[in-house]
Amino acid sequence: MPIISIDAVWSALQDLRARRPLVHNITNYVAMTVSANALLALGASPAMVHAEEEVEDFVGVADALVVNIGTLSPSWVKAMRLAVARARALGKPWVLDPVGCGATPYRGQVAAELAALAPSIIRGNASEIIALAGEDAAGKGVDATDSSAAALAAADALATRTGAVVAVTGATDFVCDGKDRLAMETGDALMPLSTGLGCALSAVAAAFAAVRPPREAATAGLAVFGAAGSAAARRCRGPGHLPAEICDELYLMTRETLAAHARLGAARIDAGV
Amino acid sequence: MPIISIDAVWSALQDLRARRPLVHNITNYVAMTVSANALLALGASPAMVHAEEEVEDFVGVADALVVNIGTLSPSWVKAMRLAVARARALGKPWVLDPVGCGATPYRGQVAAELAALAPSIIRGNASEIIALAGEDAAGKGVDATDSSAAALAAADALATRTGAVVAVTGATDFVCDGKDRLAMETGDALMPLSTGLGCALSAVAAAFAAVRPPREAATAGLAVFGAAGSAAARRCRGPGHLPAEICDELYLMTRETLAAHARLGAARIDAGV
Amino acid sequence: MPIISIDAVWSALQDLRARRPLVHNITNYVAMTVSANALLALGASPAMVHAEEEVEDFVGVADALVVNIGTLSPSWVKAMRLAVARARALGKPWVLDPVGCGATPYRGQVAAELAALAPSIIRGNASEIIALAGEDAAGKGVDATDSSAAALAAADALATRTGAVVAVTGATDFVCDGKDRLAMETGDALMPLSTGLGCALSAVAAAFAAVRPPREAATAGLAVFGAAGSAAARRCRGPGHLPAEICDELYLMTRETLAAHARLGAARIDAGV
Repeated sequence: MPIISIDAVWSALQDLRARRPLVHNITNYVAMTVSANALLALGASPAMVHAEEEVEDFVGVADALVVNIGTLSPSWVKAMRLAVARARALGKPWVLDPVGCGATPYRGQVAAELAALAPSIIRGNASEIIALAGEDAAGKGVDATDSSAAALAAADALATRTGAVVAVTGATDFVCDGKDRLAMETGDALMPLSTGLGCALSAVAAAFAAVRPPREAATAGLAVFGAAGSAAARRCRGPGHLPAEICDELYLMTRETLAAHARLGAARIDAGV
Repeated sequence: MPIISIDAVWSALQDLRARRPLVHNITNYVAMTVSANALLALGASPAMVHAEEEVEDFVGVADALVVNIGTLSPSWVKAMRLAVARARALGKPWVLDPVGCGATPYRGQVAAELAALAPSIIRGNASEIIALAGEDAAGKGVDATDSSAAALAAADALATRTGAVVAVTGATDFVCDGKDRLAMETGDALMPLSTGLGCALSAVAAAFAAVRPPREAATAGLAVFGAAGSAAARRCRGPGHLPAEICDELYLMTRETLAAHARLGAARIDAGV
Repeated sequence: MPIISIDAVWSALQDLRARRPLVHNITNYVAMTVSANALLALGASPAMVHAEEEVEDFVGVADALVVNIGTLSPSWVKAMRLAVARARALGKPWVLDPVGCGATPYRGQVAAELAALAPSIIRGNASEIIALAGEDAAGKGVDATDSSAAALAAADALATRTGAVVAVTGATDFVCDGKDRLAMETGDALMPLSTGLGCALSAVAAAFAAVRPPREAATAGLAVFGAAGSAAARRCRGPGHLPAEICDELYLMTRETLAAHARLGAARIDAGV
C-alpha cells in the first residue's frame, strides 16, 4: 500500500468542502451532537435519521451513511438493516462503528451481522476490532484496553473477511485493507477522555467516503480528525473543551496544520510487522 | 404590521425572566442539550418529556410546548399528537419546528399533520418552510439551501392556511403572519455550523410564547437569540464554542447588547416585496 | 454520623482513579453526554446501555449502575427493572436519580417502584426527594423550587423506608442515612443553569460506589463534583462553559482544590435540626 501523502489528504478535504456531502447518521445518543458538530465544522452536512419509516428514503438523498451501534435497541437495528441494504443497492459508501463490540452477546451479534453486509469502512478501537474479528478482546465496556498494535492481525483478518477497509484507532492509528497496513501518529492522549470522539471520527470517515474510495477516505478521515485533535489539545488543560476546540480546528484546518500534526510518512508499517 | 421595538423585546425578556416559564420540549436527540441549556440561560425552565404515558399530564403543568420533528419515530409522533391536543384544549401556546421537512415523505406527512393542528408559531429554515407550504424546496437533509427571502411567499401561504405565525430563519430572519412581514438582521454566519441552534431558537420562541402573543413572541425570540448569537460569534474563532458562548450571552443579555445586535427597525419589508 | 474528612474523600478519589470503574448508565438523553464526560474526566469508564436484550449482561461486567428517569418510556423502564434486578442479584451498587419525580403520575409511579428496589444511593433535588417520599412538593418540571433544607425530613423518611443513602442537592447539599445527616457547602449558583449536572453528579456518585460504601460514596461524589463546580464557576461569566470547565476540574482535581472548595467539616447538622 503506497503511503498516502499529506497532499492527497489535503486534496480530499478540499473536495469534501466543495461538495458538502450529506452524511446520514444512525448513531448513538451520546455521540450525536459531537458527530453533527464535527461534520458541520469539517464542511459536510449531517443528518440523524433512524425511523424505519424513512431511513431508506433518506439514504436515497444522502451521499454516505454511518451506522454506529453505541446505544442499541431492536427497532434501531431494524432501521440499520434497511438503511444498509438501501446503501448497498444504490452503491453508496457506508461506515460501521462497532461500539462496545464484545461487551455483551447482543452487541456482538448485531456487530457481526452488520459487518457481513459489506461496509466500506469499519472503524473501531482495538478491543472492538479484536472482538469483531472473533478473537478474545480485553475491552472494558466501550473503552479499549488493548493497544491498537495488538489488533493488527484481527484488523487484517476482518478486512479480508468483510472486504472493508479497517481502521483501528488508539495511540497509533492503523488503516488495514487485508494486504497492507498504514500507520499514523496523530491525535492526543486527551481524546479518549472526551466521549464520542471516536464516533465523530467514524462520521468524518463517512464524509470522506463520499469523495474518495474507502482506503483513501479512512486515511484522510484519520489524518484530518487526528490533526485537529492534536492541534486542539494544545489549547486545553483537560478534556472539557476538547470537542469544541476540535470543531474549531476542523473548521480552520489548513494544509500547514495538517502537515504539522498528521505524521503519515514516518509511520508506515510493513505487513510483516 | 407595526415594527416591534427593542423596548418591546426587552420588556418581554424581563417578563420571561420574572415568570420563569416551564417549557415542555418534545424535540430531537441532537438538540436536546443545547435547547435545555439555552432555555436555562434565557431564564426559562426546560423539561424534555416524550412518553405517551405522561405527555398530557406534563402539558398540564407546562407554560408552553415545543414540538420538533428532528429525530422522528412513530411512538414519538403519537406523543406529539397527544401533547398538542392537550395544549390546544388548555389554550397553551405551542411551537412547531418542522426539521428536515421535505427530506423524506414520512417527514413531510408528519409535519403537515402537525401544522394542521393550530400551532402558535412555526419556525424553520427556508427549505423547510417551502416544503411545508407544499412547494418544491431545495433542502439538503436538515440544512437549508434556499435563501430565507425565497421562502417569503411560502411563509405567507403557510401562515394564512394554518393561522400560525411563521418564522423563517437564515441570513435574514422573517416573521410572517399572512398579512405583514417583519425582517430582522441579526445572528452570524457561524450559527448554521453548530448543530441544533435553530432547534434551540424554536424552544426560545416557545418560552416567549408563554409571556407574549405569537407574533411578539416569535419576534422577541428571534431578536434575543439572534443578538446572543451575534455577540457570541465575536468571541469565537470557529463554531466549536458557539453554543456555550450563546448561553453566556443569553444569561448576560442586556438592553444594550440587544439593541446593538438585533437590527429590527431598519429591516422592515412591506408585504409587496 | 462522623464527619467524613477531606482526606477520606481524597483517598476515595485516588482509589477510583486507580481502579477506573466501569459505570453502566441508563440515563436520560439530555444528560448522557455530560454524564459520560464527567465520568471520563473523573477517572471512570462510562457506558450507556439500555436495550432489554443486553442490560443484564452489561450489569454483569459493570462495577456500578445508575438509573435516571429523566426521559422515560415504557421500554426503558423494563430495561431499568432488569438491570436493577441483576445488580441486586450480583451485589453491585446502584444509584437512583428520580428526575422530575412529582411532575406527572407516571413519573411518580416509576420512581416509587424503583426506590423500593433497594438502591444504594438516591440523589435528587429537594422537590424530587419530597415527592418521592410521598409528600407534597413544589417542583417545576425537573427543576426544584423547594430548598434542600426543606427536604430533610423527607430524606430521612425515604432513607429509613428504602435503606438507601439519600443525597439532596441544592444551595446546601445533604447526605442522609435515616439516622444522621451530613451537610456540605460547595458548588455554585450557576450549576442549576446548566442542564444535566445533577444527573452527572448521580453518575459520579455511582462511580464512587464502586470503591466505597454508599454513605462514603455519596459524600465523596458530592464533595468532588461540588468542588469541581465551585472551582469551574470561577472561570465562567455564565453557565455556557460550565460543563467543560467542570470536566477540566475533575480531571485536574487535587487534594488542595478539594479542600479549598468542599467545606465538609463546618457544615455538619445534627439530626435534630
